[in-house]
Amino acid sequence: MNATTNTATAPRPEPASDIEIARAAAIKPIADIGETLGVPWKAMVPYGHTKAKIDLDYIRSLADRPDGKLILVTGLTPTPPGEGKTTTSVGLSDALSAAGRNVAACLREPSLGPCFGMKGGAAGGGHAQVIPMEDINLHFTGDIHAIGMAHNLLAAMIDNHMNWGNKLGIDPRRVSWRRVIDMNERALREIVAGLGAGNGMPREDGFDITVASEIMAILCLATDLEDLQARLARIVVAETMDRQPVTAADLEADGAMAVLLKDALMPNLVQTLENTPAFVHGGPFANIAHGCNSVMATKTALKLADYVVTEAGFGADLGAEKFFDIKCRKAGLKPAAAVIVATARALKMHGGVGLDDLKSENVTAVRDGCENLLRHVRNIKAFGVPPVVAVNRFDTDTDAELAAIREVVAEEGVETVICTHFADGGAGAAQLADTVTALADGGESDFKPLYPDEMPLWDKIRTVAQRIYAAEDITADKQIRNRIKALEKAGYGDVPVCIAKTQYSFSTDASRRGAPTGHTIPIREVRLSAGAGFIVVVCGEIMTMPGLPRRPAAADMGVHANGDIHGLF
Amino acid sequence: MNATTNTATAPRPEPASDIEIARAAAIKPIADIGETLGVPWKAMVPYGHTKAKIDLDYIRSLADRPDGKLILVTGLTPTPPGEGKTTTSVGLSDALSAAGRNVAACLREPSLGPCFGMKGGAAGGGHAQVIPMEDINLHFTGDIHAIGMAHNLLAAMIDNHMNWGNKLGIDPRRVSWRRVIDMNERALREIVAGLGAGNGMPREDGFDITVASEIMAILCLATDLEDLQARLARIVVAETMDRQPVTAADLEADGAMAVLLKDALMPNLVQTLENTPAFVHGGPFANIAHGCNSVMATKTALKLADYVVTEAGFGADLGAEKFFDIKCRKAGLKPAAAVIVATARALKMHGGVGLDDLKSENVTAVRDGCENLLRHVRNIKAFGVPPVVAVNRFDTDTDAELAAIREVVAEEGVETVICTHFADGGAGAAQLADTVTALADGGESDFKPLYPDEMPLWDKIRTVAQRIYAAEDITADKQIRNRIKALEKAGYGDVPVCIAKTQYSFSTDASRRGAPTGHTIPIREVRLSAGAGFIVVVCGEIMTMPGLPRRPAAADMGVHANGDIHGLF
Repeated sequence: MNATTNTATAPRPEPASDIEIARAAAIKPIADIGETLGVPWKAMVPYGHTKAKIDLDYIRSLADRPDGKLILVTGLTPTPPGEGKTTTSVGLSDALSAAGRNVAACLREPSLGPCFGMKGGAAGGGHAQVIPMEDINLHFTGDIHAIGMAHNLLAAMIDNHMNWGNKLGIDPRRVSWRRVIDMNERALREIVAGLGAGNGMPREDGFDITVASEIMAILCLATDLEDLQARLARIVVAETMDRQPVTAADLEADGAMAVLLKDALMPNLVQTLENTPAFVHGGPFANIAHGCNSVMATKTALKLADYVVTEAGFGADLGAEKFFDIKCRKAGLKPAAAVIVATARALKMHGGVGLDDLKSENVTAVRDGCENLLRHVRNIKAFGVPPVVAVNRFDTDTDAELAAIREVVAEEGVETVICTHFADGGAGAAQLADTVTALADGGESDFKPLYPDEMPLWDKIRTVAQRIYAAEDITADKQIRNRIKALEKAGYGDVPVCIAKTQYSFSTDASRRGAPTGHTIPIREVRLSAGAGFIVVVCGEIMTMPGLPRRPAAADMGVHANGDIHGLF
Repeated sequence: MNATTNTATAPRPEPASDIEIARAAAIKPIADIGETLGVPWKAMVPYGHTKAKIDLDYIRSLADRPDGKLILVTGLTPTPPGEGKTTTSVGLSDALSAAGRNVAACLREPSLGPCFGMKGGAAGGGHAQVIPMEDINLHFTGDIHAIGMAHNLLAAMIDNHMNWGNKLGIDPRRVSWRRVIDMNERALREIVAGLGAGNGMPREDGFDITVASEIMAILCLATDLEDLQARLARIVVAETMDRQPVTAADLEADGAMAVLLKDALMPNLVQTLENTPAFVHGGPFANIAHGCNSVMATKTALKLADYVVTEAGFGADLGAEKFFDIKCRKAGLKPAAAVIVATARALKMHGGVGLDDLKSENVTAVRDGCENLLRHVRNIKAFGVPPVVAVNRFDTDTDAELAAIREVVAEEGVETVICTHFADGGAGAAQLADTVTALADGGESDFKPLYPDEMPLWDKIRTVAQRIYAAEDITADKQIRNRIKALEKAGYGDVPVCIAKTQYSFSTDASRRGAPTGHTIPIREVRLSAGAGFIVVVCGEIMTMPGLPRRPAAADMGVHANGDIHGLF
């Protein structure tokens, strides 16, 4: 979902497909990759010969080490063809490694289900990939299966409680904890469960895709097993007949959920095509959740490497803002620099060009589109983090277009670097690595979140809307305003806000590309993610269960007798 | 489900719990266990340091090696306290190993979901366990998650096909392929799916527990990846409006399902407490499916070890009959000997004693109960396989009771061996190992299935009912008889029959212990498992989705800060 559009987009100067490139890579045993970072074999939990989890005891033993420098890769407002944040993260990591730096990438973990819908995995692309790509896109180390089990155990315990007398007085009409499955499952979006004599209480229910579970967000924010279980305990699943919240702790489900998740909490280590260590762990949505890889992985990487390259979902307005205001705030992370990925193609679209005309030179449109990019540049600066713009170069980009980007961005005092990592691997991001190293080592960063914890929720939402989206104001029905007041009264006033809106515009209208102003952000719904520790502010249609297309990608897949997969990518 | 009653039953002379014993074991690296069998490290796919899968290419390379001897562990008609087939399989394997034999155990893989309902894992017990028991009972190597994904992908493709125009003309009222989840989920037994505009066609549906999926049976019968995909392709999921079968191949789902299952097909290798190699792979139900571990694991073990000890579900009437008539017939296996596990306690129950009086000596009841045991002994002989009776000894068993068993069984020309492996590990089954070795090496076995492939389905069912259950006859409504004729007409006449009935009696009345005669077996329903390759003959209430109890075991579980689980066992 959050990462599936990242691969099919960048230039392909040679005929080799992603999977061909990945299979041709000289993959190293994961023990060797761990050794690069100084991780002893006994602290690694192997899953096959090229994937491993890192033991939690070992991670605890690193606590007193100094942290490396954290570099965020984010992007301009995305366009349908995608811009390549994951490939840039991988290319930059490989370039840093090639320059002799001790580096680790921290990426998001893809969801399996959507692979069977549209074609395309989510492990980078071209010569900037993490491998083994098939494993990473299939069951990987089982994290998402574990999340699904923990989520559905809690769901089962809700209905079971109601079945056996409902001592807590749960209102079956007010169960907010749905079920999950890692599949594009249109038919399960809305169901009636509990039918048939002896099968509990009939009630309306439905399934989301597993990665949309609050448990994914919790796993990605938890700092150790105790924190994990404490967060699970706080999950609010329903209301009682007299409108009091019912938590996972009330149902005594938190301990068993932690049992199911204890291995999933260990970060996953793999490698790039150029054998750079890459943690691929956790992948929450970037709308209803914060869209970043796990705190466990990022903190572990910072203890083991001097430079840690990580990515956030969607554009910087959604992804970087949540990375800063939710992940960094809560985990005490201090990013040293940010890379804003852009493409000439995306800038043209933001400058008004349609999908069919992207291959023709159009310097004016590129310049116009830079308004979008510049707003993201200023936004990143507002957090006190120094940015650089990385242009993911395509064959059809002209020198004049690239010069125009460089010139406009320079007016903000920010450097632009042209990258060709998709075609050239780390070598194509060597200059970006130099620039990022200089920025990160320059001590310029003075990170601070956008708003203080104690600001009222309404003001937090308005602050994000006005300062990041350039909105005029926010609006909401009385019912929603009351809900916000009720959440504050219930003790949830000091958490960050997580705004769920379209990723395709600063506004809530996906068709408004560029840098719209004067818009208002209407709040449709407010949801409490008490375990994750944020309030989800829904400002648009948010799909948490995709469907399969008319001809699913699954229809073309198979396994050869030798075990090689075909049709997956 | 199939194995959860195997642990809590045998004697406990010392206070140590199963989990304490398991944690105190001197577990070896899985590479060392592989080495015991001559498996090179590069042919092993590790999952942590003490579990591994065996690579399929390596398994293919073993094809020309001679097979070891296959020993089946089965039991008398089970009673609620359980008899200990899994512990006997483990104890016997350890005893063979201690006697210097090259041996491997082949056991069933437990289901995760039910652990959260009633207490009790399924990896043996006492000093006869497979380890790491927590991992084996939790996510293990992800096989059951993979089965769930493959099953639900097929389900999603059915509804998706109907959503996009239903070119195949699937009748939404006649979709027999339900969904699965690895959870005790009463509320999902019967649902209405596809509600809401844009979410497909509303229809009745429901979930079974994952191990009840036909895909579990398929995975356990498949001989390689090609056979796996071919079986998946043959699954019949629905009927069209004009009552023609719709298969997974018609929906083009088989290839993607095989992709999801390619790792799950590799057998899992672990070890016993005494470091004997143990394959734990596959765990189909023993009523609606054949109840044995995978053919892949058994065949691999036979290539690597001189003696392979395996188990079948429930009593010999259900478990051993299916092991012989389905698994051995289809996989070309020739068992060399069979162990029939009994307890004095179970014999007393078959002799008419109630649960509360089992601790008092009652030689008469033991003798009466032996009628049940003797029928199983004769049944095993009917397959041409020489049996031995193993009595799993409890503290409360008296010498007179044990002498009575020995005496009655000897009248059939069969030896009885008293075992104490639960308390003493392999040493407690040393004599059993000697007896089994002598039987298996004696060349006495002349295995043949009970009926030929070409026998009509009705006659196959009647043959099993009369010769194994000692029933007078079988009965069925005209509708069911017509269904059987239709299946034969459609080309399914040459497959074995898989009878789903209560495991607690030779009859279909669970309360009729001992050795009932004169009963009839009424057929309630006939289901086609075209991919697994058998016809399921339902002769009683068969639960394919359990519920959680009033106080689920989950409520007492948790993880300590050091990662140790509490409350799981």
